[in-house]
Amino acid sequence: MTEPTKFILTEDRIPTHWVNLLPDLPGDPLPPLNPGTMQPAGPDDLTPIFPMDLIGQEVSTDAEVEIPDVVREIYKLWRPTPLFRARRLERELDTPARIFYKYEGGSPAGSHKPNSAVAQAYANKEAGISRLVTETGAGQWGSALALACSLFGLECLVYMVGASYDQKPYRRALMESWGAKVIRSPSDTTDSGRAQAEHTTGSLGIAISEAVEVAAQAEDTNYALGSVLNHVCLHQTVIGQEAMAQMEMAGAEPDVVVGCVGGGSNFAGIAFPYVQRVIRGEAKTRFVAAEPAACPTLTRGAYRYDFGDTVGLTPLMPMYTLGHDFVPAPVHAGGLRYHGDSPMVCGLVKHGLVEARAYKQNETFAAAIRFARTEAILPAPEPAHAIRAVMEEAEAAKQAGEQRTILFNLCGHGHFDMSAYEAYLSGSLEDTEFSEADMEAALERLPDAPAIA
Amino acid sequence: MTEPTKFILTEDRIPTHWVNLLPDLPGDPLPPLNPGTMQPAGPDDLTPIFPMDLIGQEVSTDAEVEIPDVVREIYKLWRPTPLFRARRLERELDTPARIFYKYEGGSPAGSHKPNSAVAQAYANKEAGISRLVTETGAGQWGSALALACSLFGLECLVYMVGASYDQKPYRRALMESWGAKVIRSPSDTTDSGRAQAEHTTGSLGIAISEAVEVAAQAEDTNYALGSVLNHVCLHQTVIGQEAMAQMEMAGAEPDVVVGCVGGGSNFAGIAFPYVQRVIRGEAKTRFVAAEPAACPTLTRGAYRYDFGDTVGLTPLMPMYTLGHDFVPAPVHAGGLRYHGDSPMVCGLVKHGLVEARAYKQNETFAAAIRFARTEAILPAPEPAHAIRAVMEEAEAAKQAGEQRTILFNLCGHGHFDMSAYEAYLSGSLEDTEFSEADMEAALERLPDAPAIA
Repeated sequence: MTEPTKFILTEDRIPTHWVNLLPDLPGDPLPPLNPGTMQPAGPDDLTPIFPMDLIGQEVSTDAEVEIPDVVREIYKLWRPTPLFRARRLERELDTPARIFYKYEGGSPAGSHKPNSAVAQAYANKEAGISRLVTETGAGQWGSALALACSLFGLECLVYMVGASYDQKPYRRALMESWGAKVIRSPSDTTDSGRAQAEHTTGSLGIAISEAVEVAAQAEDTNYALGSVLNHVCLHQTVIGQEAMAQMEMAGAEPDVVVGCVGGGSNFAGIAFPYVQRVIRGEAKTRFVAAEPAACPTLTRGAYRYDFGDTVGLTPLMPMYTLGHDFVPAPVHAGGLRYHGDSPMVCGLVKHGLVEARAYKQNETFAAAIRFARTEAILPAPEPAHAIRAVMEEAEAAKQAGEQRTILFNLCGHGHFDMSAYEAYLSGSLEDTEFSEADMEAALERLPDAPAIA
Repeated sequence: MTEPTKFILTEDRIPTHWVNLLPDLPGDPLPPLNPGTMQPAGPDDLTPIFPMDLIGQEVSTDAEVEIPDVVREIYKLWRPTPLFRARRLERELDTPARIFYKYEGGSPAGSHKPNSAVAQAYANKEAGISRLVTETGAGQWGSALALACSLFGLECLVYMVGASYDQKPYRRALMESWGAKVIRSPSDTTDSGRAQAEHTTGSLGIAISEAVEVAAQAEDTNYALGSVLNHVCLHQTVIGQEAMAQMEMAGAEPDVVVGCVGGGSNFAGIAFPYVQRVIRGEAKTRFVAAEPAACPTLTRGAYRYDFGDTVGLTPLMPMYTLGHDFVPAPVHAGGLRYHGDSPMVCGLVKHGLVEARAYKQNETFAAAIRFARTEAILPAPEPAHAIRAVMEEAEAAKQAGEQRTILFNLCGHGHFDMSAYEAYLSGSLEDTEFSEADMEAALERLPDAPAIA
């Protein structure tokens, strides 16, 4: 009865640096490209929408980047987050595996997203910017940025995917409670929005185009992205660093680290500090990236240069892509519905350091319910994909008769996702699968960029 | 930059005992009465619906009650909870006051309710009960009990107030995710429900009648109440005990302790350990209980014996009451819409140990928004009442030029209450006030019980 259930760090253990995996990445550097010149995109391509500090972090070759004191001070509002040993789940699964999870759902926005939102808001505030603009699908990133802006006295403008705007008024109310202005996308406030007006339900790619357009045109306004980019992955590494210290407290070393992947930021957060050790030959950890079968970027996408948005306003990024104009089926894990992925995560998959697996939504909700009824926390639909993969790993350990150690990132709670659970419990969730025909059509519309070796 | 924002306890600091204030209460004991005989209700009145262990806790004269190991083990899933110093709010209010808050919203149900739900589910499991039945208004208690039952393998049946059932499908989905069965009240499954069928939107009092009726009739089924009763207040004292240890870490002693009051359980949780010290002459702490102006039990109710439910199935309880058939205006702080209050909390108000204040809902939401934009956490509408009172106390400290120390209980997050915030932000929230005519009518319908001295 006295074995610990969770491992807690005091505030002074909040990491002082973010871990930058970029200099350790295997293979040749693959810079983003300017779509006009096909030359590597430089600071000039990015300064209209990002502050210099974040551009510096995006391309930094330093193995670590110092976290500003002001950011660490705000992290104290919810960090360090707890690491749990899932003893009840282990018993339920009757597995010899030891399962640990890092829980990021205790943040004020209910997910890991504020880790980067606060860092981005601070860098922009320091650069004299007075307003940030972004897009949001399900609303997790939009609410995290709204929160961060309220803490720094910045204005916040959020383009919200039309379908979500209509169906998720509570997410919108959360952003507005923190003072953000929320606009339904596609809107008539931008050229990008007007050009896509026929897509009445919108998409993440269109919303990104609108936000980038606004940021590029207004002097006092910058853009903020909640995933994909190097500096966003960087900010999230506080998760893995804390987890490492907590696993040490638990006297355990993970055999496998699991996370869900949409744009890659929560996966990067838990995994990159461990990946660094593997690349440096200091450990032999395996990594599993779990994604939805309805948007199987890492498992089915083409490894190519593609735009980050629908209209084509961003630099070209080297990544697994389903095509920049691909609109995934409306599965409830909204945070995983993106046509591409973090170039860094994609590179790790390409080089065999990370194994990607795709799951259908009903099996992920079944895993989430089983988790909730044993470990108490109701997961968001996104990390439910990670939980599904963890259960596979636990079963594999049982089959092998080995006491393997599994660590995963429970990146958010499901309190804003009850309509999804309602649909699952009533049996009305569909298991949409990715269509090969969609992929072929998308590949034809990929930009004419250099192939990746 | 290095002053702590929050104070964290390790798992071994979860209290080993609950604090029982009953033997210290001032005044003559006021037992609940059997409404048939008007004699003190004994165990025989309660055994049909409660297990002996909880009945024992309800009437215990021991100053502390040991927490079972199994309950402490489950508490580890979210306890100890953090205590925050609200430095950002202090600056926002420009007050010399030091403001601390205990945050219970990190529990899997998002509120303090699981503290008692787990204790009650355990006692019933030990007594061989296989099903618990309860009522829920806004859904916080229902979801906490659903969670607790899932952890002990008990069935859970929840009668949900009709209006909430219709308007809050997400709360229902949360209970169902943890495996509970949810029935709209009034229902045709009970005599009480059928007798009240004309009240189509239901009320908490009717739902209690339905749940108690089911529990009284089925051998394998007991009833569980989420507030009001002595043993529920007892279970919540883990909050105040942890807070006391954390305030000691902070080197601070509260001049005033603040909580919102519906049935009284979260207020009791934070306050009773401190009240005990005041009664014993060991401290001079003040206590403020914040309630809604639309249901001002403590500030406007009559101190009388009354039923706990609408139909009149419960023993008569000595409490401030607005009449057992009073149906409060549909304010969004659903957890504060109860006609009565904990007899223990009422006794403390009667004896001048606790000061009660009533607030209108728009001013409480204004306080909640101000809190969210400085301290980041979006509060549930119930503790927003406490925050409103805290801001008054902070202003009073400023006027007096004194560095007073304020401690309050932030008993839950508002992630399930976004429709309320949406209504507030759109300016459509009404400030319903309690009607004197309502009170006069209610008093006429009070049961003919002995007056309280």
